[in-house]
Amino acid sequence: MTEFIPPGTRFVELPSPFPMKRGGELHGARIAYETWGALNAARDNAVLIVTGLSPDAHAAANTANPEPGWWEAMLGPGKPIDSDRWFVVCVNSLGSCKGSTGPASIDPATGELYRLAFPELSIEDIADAAVHVVHALGIEQLSCVIGNSMGGMTALALLARHPGIARGHINISGAARALPFSIAIRSLQREAIRLDPKWNNGHYDEHDYPESGMRMARKLGVITYRSALEWDGRFGRVRLDSDRRDDEDPFGLEFEVESYLEGHARRFVRRFDPNCYLYLSRCMDWFDLGESCGGTADAGLARIRVDRALAIGVHTDILFPLQQQQQIADGLRAGGNDASFLALESPQGHDAFLVDIARFGPAVSGFLAS
Amino acid sequence: MTEFIPPGTRFVELPSPFPMKRGGELHGARIAYETWGALNAARDNAVLIVTGLSPDAHAAANTANPEPGWWEAMLGPGKPIDSDRWFVVCVNSLGSCKGSTGPASIDPATGELYRLAFPELSIEDIADAAVHVVHALGIEQLSCVIGNSMGGMTALALLARHPGIARGHINISGAARALPFSIAIRSLQREAIRLDPKWNNGHYDEHDYPESGMRMARKLGVITYRSALEWDGRFGRVRLDSDRRDDEDPFGLEFEVESYLEGHARRFVRRFDPNCYLYLSRCMDWFDLGESCGGTADAGLARIRVDRALAIGVHTDILFPLQQQQQIADGLRAGGNDASFLALESPQGHDAFLVDIARFGPAVSGFLAS
Repeated sequence: MTEFIPPGTRFVELPSPFPMKRGGELHGARIAYETWGALNAARDNAVLIVTGLSPDAHAAANTANPEPGWWEAMLGPGKPIDSDRWFVVCVNSLGSCKGSTGPASIDPATGELYRLAFPELSIEDIADAAVHVVHALGIEQLSCVIGNSMGGMTALALLARHPGIARGHINISGAARALPFSIAIRSLQREAIRLDPKWNNGHYDEHDYPESGMRMARKLGVITYRSALEWDGRFGRVRLDSDRRDDEDPFGLEFEVESYLEGHARRFVRRFDPNCYLYLSRCMDWFDLGESCGGTADAGLARIRVDRALAIGVHTDILFPLQQQQQIADGLRAGGNDASFLALESPQGHDAFLVDIARFGPAVSGFLAS
Repeated sequence: MTEFIPPGTRFVELPSPFPMKRGGELHGARIAYETWGALNAARDNAVLIVTGLSPDAHAAANTANPEPGWWEAMLGPGKPIDSDRWFVVCVNSLGSCKGSTGPASIDPATGELYRLAFPELSIEDIADAAVHVVHALGIEQLSCVIGNSMGGMTALALLARHPGIARGHINISGAARALPFSIAIRSLQREAIRLDPKWNNGHYDEHDYPESGMRMARKLGVITYRSALEWDGRFGRVRLDSDRRDDEDPFGLEFEVESYLEGHARRFVRRFDPNCYLYLSRCMDWFDLGESCGGTADAGLARIRVDRALAIGVHTDILFPLQQQQQIADGLRAGGNDASFLALESPQGHDAFLVDIARFGPAVSGFLAS
């Protein structure tokens, strides 16, 4: 499989070798990133964004790439993350296929794709790699690190392993450890990919590609990223027009919601490498901030030091439920940090931060402005 | 595939032909049922139980079959559904493979299994077939019809299509129409089965059996039947012992929750017919009580006439969310019925009625006693 690198992406070389937490090391690895705004003379206006499983570093339009990004409404001049004030850096996670080194990259030791020869990936590795980008850009200390979803895990690992790296932290729909319900869902997504005969133990190519498995995995993802409440208002029980249905297939697509899922899945399956998906999915299961101190996730949170922190979640999130963001705020506060918790009434579930800008925008801009 | 009929199961022959709502008819079809207690002289102490997708008619131990049933703690002498007082009937749904006629039964027209030649199945057909059992047992009017999950849909269809059939109704974690979120989950379960090459368009046998697809479908079912809250307390992040892990497989089972799902799935896949699963799953998607009156589900509810009704749900149910049981109670009340709504704090999600007898028991016995 090829990688999927947006135009205008920039790169930082990681130290070589780059040791991996669970064993092994990378040689000649790199991290993809993009920036918005300018670093000021004091070098104290930097904001780092670490992402969920699938996004690339192109969070929003910038001079290098005017195409809208995945957080377009949130980031840019005059937007909640205001690039007129902040120098914003977004990194693509280590292990991804969007420019950073991962299982879909060439292993310099063999000249072939890593595939499953890529070492086991952890959230901590993703965090360490992101810190290298921060330092390479001449930034000693971030004003704020913002992490969404899996990025909320990455941000916590980064704060725990690199004391003093950031003065502020916004954790959005993140978690200090993976819960069994989320592990179960991700395990099923991985099983769908691995059961597809075309996955072939990681040795697929674009002609023999585990499309069915990826489609199943993505559909399950989309289901758990949203919520019953939102979909009732959005799709109800509307049927597809007869010309969009296959009347010969008694179990074929009939409802709009089925067609929506199918469309989402088809757009995704060829734009994300299946092996990278497996690695990134599994590294979330393994994450428990408690490991940072040989104790519980709460103890790990209490050892973090930031000036201010905000954990945001939504009531309708079934994948990273609200109690997990509450735990982050409580845990940080138990360590003496100034941390607050904000529960939003978004109906959109886990992915609300991508779409409910009316609620998330003021929350983020309010924190950054104060 | 064979059918899976508990010992002691009894049968009622349906009228032949038995017309199906969406077209076609059945010949020589039958419904499996079991009973507990005795019908009194006035024939006014009968309680009917209609079930979710997978249960058979063996809800509890009885004289014909002393093995514990799927609702053992709820039904029997002195239990919440007290068989010393009530004559209780539980029917296996039409379309199932647990004794009632369905896609895994012999089509008398061909002498072969129906498979996908079985006519399209609807909740209304399941309800009509259950009413035949009630009448065949000499019961004019039920004291109460109790429906769980899919059975909650069946009970509403039965009340709407057979006015006067019951004086009371308990709807447990049911719905007056399928929501798009639940449709999406079921659609994905069906896709998992249909994508399995061994499904073979319904033409599998026990040697060439869609085991992977059924396993995926069941795992997704179990995930959505329970809740994140419950699993955190139950499994946490406990790992399997090393002797239960395959260290050669980087994405193999590692967490207890993954092993739990695997065990659940393995027990299920060979005990439920895949084609029956597809038919029963799809008939839930199609259900909208509004069709009973050419209007909305609310209008359909308002046309039902019972003396008393109770709709029970739990906060942690993501498959039939609490708002759906609220809708049932509100809709029945809007029609002038004495209907109440009870939201239970069970952590166990959709399947709480099977396990949280401490909460469901008193709710059910209180309604039946008054």
